[in-house]
Amino acid sequence: MLNSSAKHPLAMDMKGPALSAGPDLPSAKDKTLFTPGPLTTSLPVKQAMLRDAGSWHFEFNAVVASVRDRILRLAGLSREAGFEAILLQGSGTFGVEAVFATAVPPSGKVLVLVNGAYGERMVLMLKRAGIEHTILRSPETVRNDPAALDRELAADQSITHVAVVHCETTTGILNPLTEIGRIIKKHGRICVVDAMSSFGAIPIDFEAAGIDYLISSANKCLEGVPGFSLVIARRVALLACEGYARSLSLDLLDQLKGFEKNGQFRYTPPTHAILAFQQALNEFEQEGGVAGRAERYRRNHTILVEGMKQIGFRPCLSPEVQSYIITAFHYPDDPKFSFHDFYRRLSDRGFIIYPGKLSQANCFRIGTIGRIFGADIGALLGGIRETINDLGVTVR
Amino acid sequence: MLNSSAKHPLAMDMKGPALSAGPDLPSAKDKTLFTPGPLTTSLPVKQAMLRDAGSWHFEFNAVVASVRDRILRLAGLSREAGFEAILLQGSGTFGVEAVFATAVPPSGKVLVLVNGAYGERMVLMLKRAGIEHTILRSPETVRNDPAALDRELAADQSITHVAVVHCETTTGILNPLTEIGRIIKKHGRICVVDAMSSFGAIPIDFEAAGIDYLISSANKCLEGVPGFSLVIARRVALLACEGYARSLSLDLLDQLKGFEKNGQFRYTPPTHAILAFQQALNEFEQEGGVAGRAERYRRNHTILVEGMKQIGFRPCLSPEVQSYIITAFHYPDDPKFSFHDFYRRLSDRGFIIYPGKLSQANCFRIGTIGRIFGADIGALLGGIRETINDLGVTVR
Repeated sequence: MLNSSAKHPLAMDMKGPALSAGPDLPSAKDKTLFTPGPLTTSLPVKQAMLRDAGSWHFEFNAVVASVRDRILRLAGLSREAGFEAILLQGSGTFGVEAVFATAVPPSGKVLVLVNGAYGERMVLMLKRAGIEHTILRSPETVRNDPAALDRELAADQSITHVAVVHCETTTGILNPLTEIGRIIKKHGRICVVDAMSSFGAIPIDFEAAGIDYLISSANKCLEGVPGFSLVIARRVALLACEGYARSLSLDLLDQLKGFEKNGQFRYTPPTHAILAFQQALNEFEQEGGVAGRAERYRRNHTILVEGMKQIGFRPCLSPEVQSYIITAFHYPDDPKFSFHDFYRRLSDRGFIIYPGKLSQANCFRIGTIGRIFGADIGALLGGIRETINDLGVTVR
Repeated sequence: MLNSSAKHPLAMDMKGPALSAGPDLPSAKDKTLFTPGPLTTSLPVKQAMLRDAGSWHFEFNAVVASVRDRILRLAGLSREAGFEAILLQGSGTFGVEAVFATAVPPSGKVLVLVNGAYGERMVLMLKRAGIEHTILRSPETVRNDPAALDRELAADQSITHVAVVHCETTTGILNPLTEIGRIIKKHGRICVVDAMSSFGAIPIDFEAAGIDYLISSANKCLEGVPGFSLVIARRVALLACEGYARSLSLDLLDQLKGFEKNGQFRYTPPTHAILAFQQALNEFEQEGGVAGRAERYRRNHTILVEGMKQIGFRPCLSPEVQSYIITAFHYPDDPKFSFHDFYRRLSDRGFIIYPGKLSQANCFRIGTIGRIFGADIGALLGGIRETINDLGVTVR
């Protein structure tokens, strides 16, 4: 048989040059992802995708049921305690929008706590869906303000829901979730938490924070691959939303009913991503659950920040509000610094970092989550040192 | 290290009993899927997922760009000819809903041609989204009626869009797409085609049918894995939809703008499913594109129908309207027949078929798409024969 590259104008794609190390030679390993996700995952997680499962088949349904149970358990919850874990096709954003599209009544009004891009995105989806809302903004480097929330809820009785981003990956800031949740509950409103980049690695007390809906994703701290979001919902809250849904695909209540009716997703699930997630949960439990994962990520973060400071980089956040998920660093003051060149050269060395998202400062970000360890952070620091030297940039 | 099963209440999950052949021993191979998708895919397609790609990274963006181009090319289209291929996270249903959510103006009205469950699903999503619509139903075993469509469009000037399901997998019926499209164009309305289970295996003439939007999925005839839908849109039609979107996640125009701005998905893409799809496209081109794939699927279908008739089964559809994608068969008349037992025993033999979806008749379905060949159909027929014998069911 002829080599296909002789026959097709698309031959370039066939050799898979993208993601390869050179113009022709594929690399031995993937570059390591120091991003907020999709992340570097373990080989067994990816190998779990070497199977084709039938989405209507009872054996696959058993996997879905077990995954849903295990999500609740890792959160310290259970069905008996009144919670449900619902998987939804699409990215985490689809899960957040699904909560709003399903749970806010026509007469509802959402207060969004905003101190970064993910809070702003919630505002955008409420706008697009025509859902009434109001915004309580803090600067991107400052945590959500519980006292201001308290005043706002006291002043505006029409607010039915409050939405908060637990870890704002714009900066890596960790918002005071329990404190915020207590105020929401004091005022008897529904509490919606975007815990995309914190769930599984930062302890969350659902009861103390009075959380009604929490959204996360397969490809963050649980170290699965992207393909679906997960929503933990207080059952009684969700069941009260009959008839509100503004979308079929994003109807969380209908999705729950589908699982309860026959164990199936209503519409084609990402079967491979779910098999990968099952293995990711195995590894999560082996690592000791939330506590074990938190310990590794915290160590990654500590090594990173110490090393970056030694090189001369300055974190954007003060340590008291900084999570161990992702860390933003200021650009060096040297005008010779180009993020584009810095990024490309690090990529050539096998390290993929992340651009900044702060509106008020030039920064870049380094994630410390995924299947990475202290040694990977050490290697990255070495690569950053060399790259800075190569570029002739003065950091301090 | 202790075996994790000693430590965890979830040990059952860790051994992965679901999808295994016996209580403890995993099987050597996956069961073969004779379904409308997710399908059995090639090993290289699945192996392409053994990599972690950065969703912001230029190398991954190059894959996305090339995949979008190749989708247009395989459809005989190009960007120069005014078309765009847009990938959207989620299942095919998300793609269909995205077209309605994005493209129908507030004053718009959609006529839906319905002769099966997927047409009904479009009606349901229009209802949920509060979009005005009207329905033209045919019996499930009868093709959409072009003459009735012509009359309806002449009578109701308020209809702005017509939506049609090319191959209704409820039965496997193939609707007369070009004829329908010509009538839609004659009346100057927008043509929306759900080509979920036909695209890539049944030739579609976009210009002759005047298609404005066509939706399909990664995990159907292109033999990728599930995780995203693909929408081919006439650029000028989509650009005219500024401001209509009722959803952020499902905003197709915004999704296109995202790709055009920086080559990226707006929100986390299913990176692994996209790498798999790149390989699926390689194999699609190696097989000779639409013509080659059509030939294999047609052969699969012919072998299936001949063999099933020999056993004594009767197809639900007449051959003139039957596609080679999926075929519905009547239950045997013998009251001893139980689909549940039939299904389970076929599953034990390594064959996964599909339940029926006809509202008026008891039937089951067998798909002939995916990485399956004549030999697989032959093996299935052998398994069906043995199962019928085991069950002591009389088929004719």
